[in-house]
Amino acid sequence: MYDLIIIGGGPAGLTAAVYARRAGLSTLILEITVCGGQIINSQSVENFPAIEAIEGWRLADNWQKQALGLGAELKSAEVAGVELDGDIKTVRTNKGDFEALTVIIATGAGHRKLDCKGAAELSGRGVSTCASCDGAFFRNRPVAVVGGGNTAFEDALYLAGICERVYIVHRRREFRAERRLVEAAEGKTNVEFLTPCVPEEILGDENDRVRGMRVKNLETGEIRELPTPGVFTAIGMVPDTRRFENVCRLDGDGYIVAGEDCETGTPGVYVAGDCRKKALRQLVTAASDGAVAGSAAAKFVNLRK
Amino acid sequence: MYDLIIIGGGPAGLTAAVYARRAGLSTLILEITVCGGQIINSQSVENFPAIEAIEGWRLADNWQKQALGLGAELKSAEVAGVELDGDIKTVRTNKGDFEALTVIIATGAGHRKLDCKGAAELSGRGVSTCASCDGAFFRNRPVAVVGGGNTAFEDALYLAGICERVYIVHRRREFRAERRLVEAAEGKTNVEFLTPCVPEEILGDENDRVRGMRVKNLETGEIRELPTPGVFTAIGMVPDTRRFENVCRLDGDGYIVAGEDCETGTPGVYVAGDCRKKALRQLVTAASDGAVAGSAAAKFVNLRK
Repeated sequence: MYDLIIIGGGPAGLTAAVYARRAGLSTLILEITVCGGQIINSQSVENFPAIEAIEGWRLADNWQKQALGLGAELKSAEVAGVELDGDIKTVRTNKGDFEALTVIIATGAGHRKLDCKGAAELSGRGVSTCASCDGAFFRNRPVAVVGGGNTAFEDALYLAGICERVYIVHRRREFRAERRLVEAAEGKTNVEFLTPCVPEEILGDENDRVRGMRVKNLETGEIRELPTPGVFTAIGMVPDTRRFENVCRLDGDGYIVAGEDCETGTPGVYVAGDCRKKALRQLVTAASDGAVAGSAAAKFVNLRK
Repeated sequence: MYDLIIIGGGPAGLTAAVYARRAGLSTLILEITVCGGQIINSQSVENFPAIEAIEGWRLADNWQKQALGLGAELKSAEVAGVELDGDIKTVRTNKGDFEALTVIIATGAGHRKLDCKGAAELSGRGVSTCASCDGAFFRNRPVAVVGGGNTAFEDALYLAGICERVYIVHRRREFRAERRLVEAAEGKTNVEFLTPCVPEEILGDENDRVRGMRVKNLETGEIRELPTPGVFTAIGMVPDTRRFENVCRLDGDGYIVAGEDCETGTPGVYVAGDCRKKALRQLVTAASDGAVAGSAAAKFVNLRK
């Protein structure tokens, strides 16, 4: 039995582990793939406090080393369900069941899927959610980015450096992205804005690979066919919380409802990071949640031991 | 006129500047002394996410470089007062008045002073709030640390490495500090715990320098005189918010009342970091506030410009 099980090894989970270990809690981190969360796929992270620029994988690696160096255990396991009532919590995984006095849910959020004809069938065959992973496949060819937030613009800028042309397709005329990013994209000669436009269909070729995308202008009704073998989607996130819907309160978008104290309402159970209902989802706000939840778990354990 | 004035160049203020500049806001940071806040005096910061260990001054330096590198302006000025009503906010300083559309208050918190005979008179003459600054003056001599939180124990551990003996004087039997820190102190042969004890008097010598401290045991009433030429106090923080008491709502301890959205209730005015009412005051929670407040200021400015 552990003092604390952390579900998810992203920035929130790793920071929770740092704080919990410094407070002396035996701590198990459960992560399905690799630690680090979304930053794993970031070419360069430039909005982390006190670090001007760092590759995402390196930041993730430093973070994991810090947590494990303090004595946190890490297991590669997929969580199937949880039993959070009672003094001892059980986390059921494909590698067996684990018990702890406290649990922190830090499962993050995943990419929202494009909802148009051909998108699901051609996913991974030209439709991608990760510019830095897949952009190089389309060197010197035209690509499209669907979305209007920071991620869409970061992707577009990255792709503009390696692809022939980048079309930014967004359903509104205005962008949620930071002005600095929008201005940077406007300054690129090979970036073209298509607004207010939505994808109508992803087009496949005889090998079932993307050959282009049909886009509809919502004002004029005009249809345009883009010759883009790569289509990158950056249209928001969906929290990874379905396994917790019976044990936590979720909001309409599926985020777990908790205040900045990260308390779920179930004693000893906390939620931290992108899967929590909050206004700003950033590395540093996730890390802050991790510190709060890790400290709260430590206080909880110390009172019971 | 600026888009944003940030009062205070600690972790919250610098992170707010990073986020505001990335969003394109013209940004002025006002700081009385040097940027970085309390970490300036930390020998080693080991609970900052993704950084195993770093000297406080170096972390502060990196942070300032990041903010200024993105184009934030920094002025060394002491803020005397603010006028926050109306669309244009005015910040009055000893270097003149500055105007902005938005203001972030990130003034942090300072050290609480010891309240016993001799403490004020001998401050800076053996009574110190900074072990890493002043510890070396007492090499191979006995010192006392007053307090029971993380800072008290971090100070005690630091001093144990250079001083002959360290007395930890705390008014309760239990410590608020992380267990890991308490255990580490217990493991040192030259650290002695005096609980539940309070300082009765700081004793001066003929040169008006500390020669020792009289300590009273609250259970037995016993008085003990410690031969400590150095007395380090770590008994908590007081927020630096007096200049804002007429324009912001303060709680009983003087912290500015705002939720995790950092909004003060006055449009365009935000509070971030240690001076905000919150449960956990840490580097990363201050930085998180800065990101939230900087982003909120950017949204506010973008809607009005």
